[in-house]
Amino acid sequence: MPATSSPSSSPQRAPRAAKRPAADAYRPVLGRLPILEVSPVVENGAWPAKAFAGEVVPFSAVAFREGHDLIGVELLLTSPSGTSIRRRMSPVNPGTDSWCTTALLDEHGTWRFHVEAWADDVATWWHAATIKVPAGIDVDLMLAMGAELLERAADACGTADEAAWLRDEATTLTKGRRPATARLDALDEHGVLDYLTSNPLRSLVTESREYEVLAERERAGVASWYEYFPRSVGAVRHEDGSWSSGTFRTAESRLRDIAAMGFDVVYLPPIHPIGRAYRKGPNNSLEAGENDPGSPWAIGSAEGGHDAIHPELGTEADFRHFVAAARKEGLEVALDLALQASPDHPWVREHPEWFTRLPDGSIAYAENPPKKYQDIYPINFDNDPKGIRAEVLRIVRLWMRRGIRIFRVDNPHTKPVAFWEWLIHTVNAQEPDAVFLAEAFTRPAVMRTLAKAGFQQSYSYFTWRNTKEELEEFLDSISHETDAFMRPNLFVNTPDILTEYLQFGGRGAFKVRAAIAATAAPLWGVYSGYELFESVARAGAEEYVDNEKFEYRPRDFAAAEARGDSLAPYLTMLNAVRRAHPALRQLRNLRLQASDDEAVLVYSKLLPAEFTGTGAADAVIVVANVDPHAVRETLVRLDLPSIGLEPGSRYDVTDAVTGQTWSWGEVNYVRLDPFNEPVHILSVNNPT
Amino acid sequence: MPATSSPSSSPQRAPRAAKRPAADAYRPVLGRLPILEVSPVVENGAWPAKAFAGEVVPFSAVAFREGHDLIGVELLLTSPSGTSIRRRMSPVNPGTDSWCTTALLDEHGTWRFHVEAWADDVATWWHAATIKVPAGIDVDLMLAMGAELLERAADACGTADEAAWLRDEATTLTKGRRPATARLDALDEHGVLDYLTSNPLRSLVTESREYEVLAERERAGVASWYEYFPRSVGAVRHEDGSWSSGTFRTAESRLRDIAAMGFDVVYLPPIHPIGRAYRKGPNNSLEAGENDPGSPWAIGSAEGGHDAIHPELGTEADFRHFVAAARKEGLEVALDLALQASPDHPWVREHPEWFTRLPDGSIAYAENPPKKYQDIYPINFDNDPKGIRAEVLRIVRLWMRRGIRIFRVDNPHTKPVAFWEWLIHTVNAQEPDAVFLAEAFTRPAVMRTLAKAGFQQSYSYFTWRNTKEELEEFLDSISHETDAFMRPNLFVNTPDILTEYLQFGGRGAFKVRAAIAATAAPLWGVYSGYELFESVARAGAEEYVDNEKFEYRPRDFAAAEARGDSLAPYLTMLNAVRRAHPALRQLRNLRLQASDDEAVLVYSKLLPAEFTGTGAADAVIVVANVDPHAVRETLVRLDLPSIGLEPGSRYDVTDAVTGQTWSWGEVNYVRLDPFNEPVHILSVNNPT
Repeated sequence: MPATSSPSSSPQRAPRAAKRPAADAYRPVLGRLPILEVSPVVENGAWPAKAFAGEVVPFSAVAFREGHDLIGVELLLTSPSGTSIRRRMSPVNPGTDSWCTTALLDEHGTWRFHVEAWADDVATWWHAATIKVPAGIDVDLMLAMGAELLERAADACGTADEAAWLRDEATTLTKGRRPATARLDALDEHGVLDYLTSNPLRSLVTESREYEVLAERERAGVASWYEYFPRSVGAVRHEDGSWSSGTFRTAESRLRDIAAMGFDVVYLPPIHPIGRAYRKGPNNSLEAGENDPGSPWAIGSAEGGHDAIHPELGTEADFRHFVAAARKEGLEVALDLALQASPDHPWVREHPEWFTRLPDGSIAYAENPPKKYQDIYPINFDNDPKGIRAEVLRIVRLWMRRGIRIFRVDNPHTKPVAFWEWLIHTVNAQEPDAVFLAEAFTRPAVMRTLAKAGFQQSYSYFTWRNTKEELEEFLDSISHETDAFMRPNLFVNTPDILTEYLQFGGRGAFKVRAAIAATAAPLWGVYSGYELFESVARAGAEEYVDNEKFEYRPRDFAAAEARGDSLAPYLTMLNAVRRAHPALRQLRNLRLQASDDEAVLVYSKLLPAEFTGTGAADAVIVVANVDPHAVRETLVRLDLPSIGLEPGSRYDVTDAVTGQTWSWGEVNYVRLDPFNEPVHILSVNNPT
Repeated sequence: MPATSSPSSSPQRAPRAAKRPAADAYRPVLGRLPILEVSPVVENGAWPAKAFAGEVVPFSAVAFREGHDLIGVELLLTSPSGTSIRRRMSPVNPGTDSWCTTALLDEHGTWRFHVEAWADDVATWWHAATIKVPAGIDVDLMLAMGAELLERAADACGTADEAAWLRDEATTLTKGRRPATARLDALDEHGVLDYLTSNPLRSLVTESREYEVLAERERAGVASWYEYFPRSVGAVRHEDGSWSSGTFRTAESRLRDIAAMGFDVVYLPPIHPIGRAYRKGPNNSLEAGENDPGSPWAIGSAEGGHDAIHPELGTEADFRHFVAAARKEGLEVALDLALQASPDHPWVREHPEWFTRLPDGSIAYAENPPKKYQDIYPINFDNDPKGIRAEVLRIVRLWMRRGIRIFRVDNPHTKPVAFWEWLIHTVNAQEPDAVFLAEAFTRPAVMRTLAKAGFQQSYSYFTWRNTKEELEEFLDSISHETDAFMRPNLFVNTPDILTEYLQFGGRGAFKVRAAIAATAAPLWGVYSGYELFESVARAGAEEYVDNEKFEYRPRDFAAAEARGDSLAPYLTMLNAVRRAHPALRQLRNLRLQASDDEAVLVYSKLLPAEFTGTGAADAVIVVANVDPHAVRETLVRLDLPSIGLEPGSRYDVTDAVTGQTWSWGEVNYVRLDPFNEPVHILSVNNPT
């Protein structure tokens, strides 16, 4: 129980000499045109908004002018290397004064942006002129006003030729011989209006505050993770009941298969020496036998702590060889960062002040009364914050020197969020490609704050969102509500989580969950054994029986695949679809679509042609029967413009699961059988 | 059409020398414990949140700690005169990490507040001890930890007596002879726990940023408005068709009746000289006759502009007499501030630069093509901003010297919002009791921004929210969504608005609308004639036929009342109920309740005993049949704790409309007849 008091002036404390400003110290908040609700912005810009290199990000703001005159709104965006672009924003919904555009952030680093609003004098005049001139009202006046605008445009424009052309048009508008309406129309016909739309006359120009978007490297936002225990691969049980552990060398044998399934990150549970004291046995039992390897999360023994490698896994050279072998297969290795210690950890002897000392002289183990976790000592971050920060930074940098760039952080919500804010910022300041995944299964406010404070990726509630209604709410929220700061990694299972949906849903359930995870978000993950449909839980728990956390679990993947009992081909197909469709490698473009059945979930993802690099738009429609127990037939109702098609279009869709092609329209019949193929993953063959 | 460019550095422009901070320039956002989403806060504190003296304001924040240890959260509130109070905040909904308290802002001026979160070491220990000690786990350790906390409390406490007592308790806890559980319980029995709850041991103390709430004077937030045209009261039509205008002197005759109905603000449409050029005739016709008085909003003639008084209404002395007479009746006078000019306004001659000059040399009149409003010249705020600001400030201060403190601002949304931000701030800096009501019937973003920028009151969409569903959404929004910055004044009608609901709803509709306006929000208003059930519209318009804007409209209120044809007694009852019930003089305490009928709207308002000043809570339940055409019988389902009662209670309610008393519970039968009494206004006779 920490008893220290924090420093008297914490970072959140405001300067308190808050005297009322004198009347003449008045500082207006608004500019000439109000600009509010700029997005994406996190905590009013306290932290940069998140994106990844290659992400197409929607930018929006509320902006308006008094009265009826028209305005233009633009996004001004500056890349990390200093290139600035301007993008015209479009009104979103009539009456909301919201404006939006999207932009591709194609460079890793911090982008800066602000919004500019201005009176669009040409549009205001054109609106009035095209009503009044044909009606014969104020004809000469309207034409004279138009000529004045053209003269202003001529004064402002870049070349003498353009200026001369605009002045000619001004003269023709007021003095031409054709009827007034024809002279007005001529501005359109002669391209003057187009010119003035591209080169608007801006007045009353008002700028918003400037904000930042941090575009992290692409793999921070787009990746397929595969988790496995290296000690299980190649582990051998001897006749006397003892085991030979798998090693980094034997575990390398799995890398080619993982890469062949299309994954690009392999995540290893902690690889450090495991404590002996209070070691847990099979199924989390309190007594470990002689041959039980213990939980890798009980870190630290006489052989070393967080900077050491479990001797049974190999040497540092073996580890480096493993990382290099993974890299050869196109795989990055992610390590676990679990800031806790077994009672045998060297820290306990060398730095007892990093733990909580009780009045009886003992060190506090983890507990959630009346539950006790005597194999784990939590760190007390308040006793020696400087020392702990230095040690953790040393460890992270050590593993980065050994080739690691991705850390999956165990239970970050049991450590101070300010610590993570400091650590991630400090690491990224030197190594901007470092990625931290928060394993925080806890309350929404805590998960969101961890993400805001810097975690590049977050575990999410995905595993517990199984009905159509739950999934719709969840997918909409991750794509459009928390997208400015949180990037969920949709793991379908973990060593800690085997949901009832998978326990009792049969093979269809495994397909549905994987298909949704792989297509709904650009980050997803699978823990080894999923492809074998492992689904037996410890009684009463949402956790695997004979959990690999406490045992060696060698598996024969090849035999299962040979029998046709493996999901590997399906996972391979999913990762191939993700590679083929850039629309699936975006987070913010998910759009829910309708079906008439309460168990048939439909969503689409569109990447417009300007962002695909192929010249063609990319659109995918996913239709999933989330009822693993029954065939569902229903109608799917699509909003065609949201998938890049004209209302009323006919178009072909091809199912990546079966290869079949159908002609679709707005309303489409589907039949999805969980005992065969519960999901359509449809590419739209000709979106505009 | 303004063609000027704004100054190159507008207030919203951020300093652009935004170099990336160096790694060592890292400034953490979070303190030791995260504190986020502090409320009430407007635009991250750019403007103070709004309240009024006497308002009970909910304060909230999200705060949490890593892990399982418990925290305490407090509001620290400093009054304008410098008194600071601390209020413990309570968790709102489990799992949300939201904390809330309410506080009475009983002083006019700027309050400052911040939120403090800290580790509650005593609560954390008590939670563990009361589980572990009775279970016989770690008994000595738990008691020793408790003793340590008591020693800390002794060290921290104010008096030697208290310290000695706490040390005694510490000794008893560890060394007493009674069983351990009894020694633990003794802390509760001896009042030690209560003492430590009132004087908690705070560690890891973290403060949020500081924010401001501007509590304006009570009438900015609580008032009953009555609008009338002074020229109509005492106006006489002669046999030749000509009129003698009513005057301030004749209009004084109405003040006593208005006060007797319980209103406290009389609002007068513009009282300035009215233009002759393009004067509008009856029913907005383009040609005014010799005897047509013109619209008061066509301000300015040879007799003067915004600083002058229409000669037919009287002299400045008459005006001052009128204001004094109103004051004697307990009424404040509100004037109209309509920043526009008739073509005859002195500004047009003296300051043509304040208007928009067209290429043909003419001045632009108001128009919304193809509609023209040739009797009105809008001001161009961009041609001479300094000159216009100085002139408007001169005018406002002139009328304030003549006794006016409330301005109803005509169409503020057609003028720059930044102008209003400047004007209201500048006026209030010298005269903090000045109140501005925004008559902006326009898009939500514009209305909300005007309110944020400083308007003390706002007209709202209330007149167009007539069904139960519409009203529920509206009332919830004004009480809980926009309450930090917007105070709606619920006018039931205006010279511009006679809704179809009133045109066709009969007398029941008039009662329902008035009862809801008067009880749902602390600001409401009535335009003269409402009490006579005036309901005939100009064909096709939601506006009165023979509109008083263009004509004299003398009315015989006394005769109507004598015939029993007046709503005045009902309005009197409503204002009396508002005076009797402090709960009705609050904005943020509205709570929607349920009924089984789609036309029976139910809401309640509670003011807890600690804030009423009477020692008793005040609770009112309003049940309104919003269908003016049919009797409705239904069941009303109340959440009793939300009206200060225990679940399952029986209690008496007394109807302010009829004086009847009933015994009520959670589910209650009602029958509401629009042809008799469509609304119950029930006071709860014994809330806790």
